[in-house]
Parts: sequence; structure tokens; C-alpha cells
Amino acid sequence: MKAYKIPEATVIRLSIYSRYLQQLIDDGVKSVSSDEIAGGVGVSSAQVRKDLAYFGEFGTRGVGYKVDVLYGHLMKILGLDRKWPAIIVGAGKLGSALALYQGFAARGFNVEAILDADAEKIGTKLDEIEVEPLEMMSQRIKEKNISIGIVTVPAATAQEVTDKLIDSGVKAILNFSPRVLKVPPNVLLRNVDLSVNLEVLSFNLNFIK
Amino acid sequence: MKAYKIPEATVIRLSIYSRYLQQLIDDGVKSVSSDEIAGGVGVSSAQVRKDLAYFGEFGTRGVGYKVDVLYGHLMKILGLDRKWPAIIVGAGKLGSALALYQGFAARGFNVEAILDADAEKIGTKLDEIEVEPLEMMSQRIKEKNISIGIVTVPAATAQEVTDKLIDSGVKAILNFSPRVLKVPPNVLLRNVDLSVNLEVLSFNLNFIK
Repeated sequence: MKAYKIPEATVIRLSIYSRYLQQLIDDGVKSVSSDEIAGGVGVSSAQVRKDLAYFGEFGTRGVGYKVDVLYGHLMKILGLDRKWPAIIVGAGKLGSALALYQGFAARGFNVEAILDADAEKIGTKLDEIEVEPLEMMSQRIKEKNISIGIVTVPAATAQEVTDKLIDSGVKAILNFSPRVLKVPPNVLLRNVDLSVNLEVLSFNLNFIK
Repeated sequence: MKAYKIPEATVIRLSIYSRYLQQLIDDGVKSVSSDEIAGGVGVSSAQVRKDLAYFGEFGTRGVGYKVDVLYGHLMKILGLDRKWPAIIVGAGKLGSALALYQGFAARGFNVEAILDADAEKIGTKLDEIEVEPLEMMSQRIKEKNISIGIVTVPAATAQEVTDKLIDSGVKAILNFSPRVLKVPPNVLLRNVDLSVNLEVLSFNLNFIK
């Protein structure tokens, strides 16, 4: 499944660096040192240099990096030099919040469709997207060329929804449901369970009180 | 910092099991086997038995587990047999969505205060909670006995906000900002970066196309 030998922790930091660089571009900054990037995102400058070295030499000793060039490289590496149409399945509180979350679109993840099984939700609008029935899944995925499925349905239906997404051509699943999903080896899966994150904290807080 | 020798992956599954059991209670189910739990959440039944064995013997061979008893045990282990007052700093799109997300309160994480630096946001209401200025942090944390701080501010101010939360008495930080935060060893930290999760997918999708 992993087609590239970069540690995931590095990919995560590259994503963070790229957003810091975006901020510098917005502020009109032209060049930046690894020390400055390190200070801006909260890692060591040795770590910044090591992470960037995976992808060749971008900087000049004593001068640093050209912000726009480095930003462009990072966005390309992260696959963000293009749009990634996405579909959300589950228009509950969390699905709706994600559909309205502008942080996704800002990075090229455009939510092109939102589906739900609940007749009361179907036809309601989240920004400009109308909630549609689950039966629209295959059609929307094909016509919008969607490769990312965001699963925000309850645990009981999450696997079924995921199977349907994959059957319809989705290549990556972002799972927000409290369910351990099975996907074929050629499909990418990431789990984000917001409550679980709090519960790992409460579990540990119990012992440090 | 880790006061208990349970792998984090186990804690995460315990959280998932507990929500499955809650569903069974809602459905009026009285007893459950490890096979049924395994099927319900998508892991192997050997894994379920191993995870539960960390905390002693709950089940009876051939009979399974009493749903309410097991649920009670898990909630206690996870620290969820009590309320965890929380504060959100950053009332932007994401902070607002999290404040309105009912999944937190359902598990005992009550958002007791929401702060923002933006004068335009201060005074607006999210459900019943009014957005207040950052200056209220220390007072709210003390009077509401808040131990969990949820950071949803931009990267540039995330460390500063985190330092203030810790100075005010918060013991655990859930970080949604795209910044690598530093916390003292006696403070718990978890990072949840929604965009990063999508970007790890897009990074890898780039190579499987």
C-alpha cells in the first residue's frame, strides 16, 4: 500500500511546514531559514533540514529557502498541486460541521457531495451542497471523479458504507466513525475519532490526578 | 507521563467497545459474547478478549459478558464515570463546530467556556455558551474546574494559548492547530489535525494512481 518510503511523521510535518509557508507568503515574506521554520512550527531546525532533505536540496547555505519555491515543492510532494474531490457520507452533526469546515477546501479538498439515509436530512442544504440519498453515491463519485470518501455515519453502518464507497471507485477513506474498518490493500484508510482523542486524555488524566 | 502500562491502541479500542456496548444497552441487549463485540466493531474476537483481559476477568465462559457490567467497567477505566469540563480556545469554524458537536457531551466532555481574541466573535452564542475574551481564561478554568483545553487557534498563537492554559491549571491539551506544541512532562497532549489527515491520504494517493 505504501508506495513511498517516507515516515508518516515526516509527511505530517511537511503538511505543517507548508501551512506555515503559506502564512509567510500571505505576509509577503520572501525567504526563510530552517531555524525560522523550526521556530514557527515548534520543531528543531535539525528536524526541518532532515525532513526537507528527503526530497532533495531546496535551500542555499547561509541564505535559506525561497518561500514560494519551497512552498510549491511541498504542495507538489503532498499531492496538493491539484484538487481532490471528496464525498461525505453521514450528514449528522459531525458530517455537517466537516462539510462547512473551510480548512478542507483551502487545501484543495472539495466536498462535492453529502449523502445521508435520513429522509429528514435529504434535501437540506449545507452551504451550497444539498444532502442527497445514499443511492446517489455511485453516480456522484463517477461524475465528480471523487477519490476520497469521508465516513461520518454511526458505527453500525460504517463498514457497509465504506464497502459501497470502494465499490463505487473511492481510493481513500477518512473514517470518523467509532468503528474499526476493513479495506482492501489497494485502498488507503485513516481513522479520526474525535471522542477517542478526548478519551485517551481522560484515561491518562485519571492516573496523574 | 504515562502512569499506566496500557498500549494506546488498546485504550482506543476500549473506547470503541464502550460505544458499541452503549448501543446494545439502548437496544435492550443484556449479554454479549466477545465474538459479537468483535463483529460489531470490526476487530478479531481474540483481540477483544486480550484487550479486556488487561483489566481482569469480566466475562463467563460460554455465557459472555453482562452488557451493563462490562460497560460500567469500561467507562470507569476510561475515566468516563465522571464529567470532564473542557474549554475551547478559538471560536473559528472548527472551534464552533466542536463546541456544537454533541458527541463530546454525550461522553461527559462538557464544553464550559469558549474564548476568542476577535472582538467580532466575543458575545456571540454557540448553543448556550457565549464566546468570551481570552482574558477570561484563568477565571473560567478555576471556577469550572476545567482540566482539558481544546486549542483551535491559528498556528501563530497556538503555543502562547497553550502556555496560558497550562499556567491556568489545565492538565491536558487537545491540539487542533497545525503547530507542534511543547508542553511540560506533567501535561498530556494529543494532536488532531483534520487537514493533515486528508493530506496523508493525498500524499499516498499520488503514488497509487
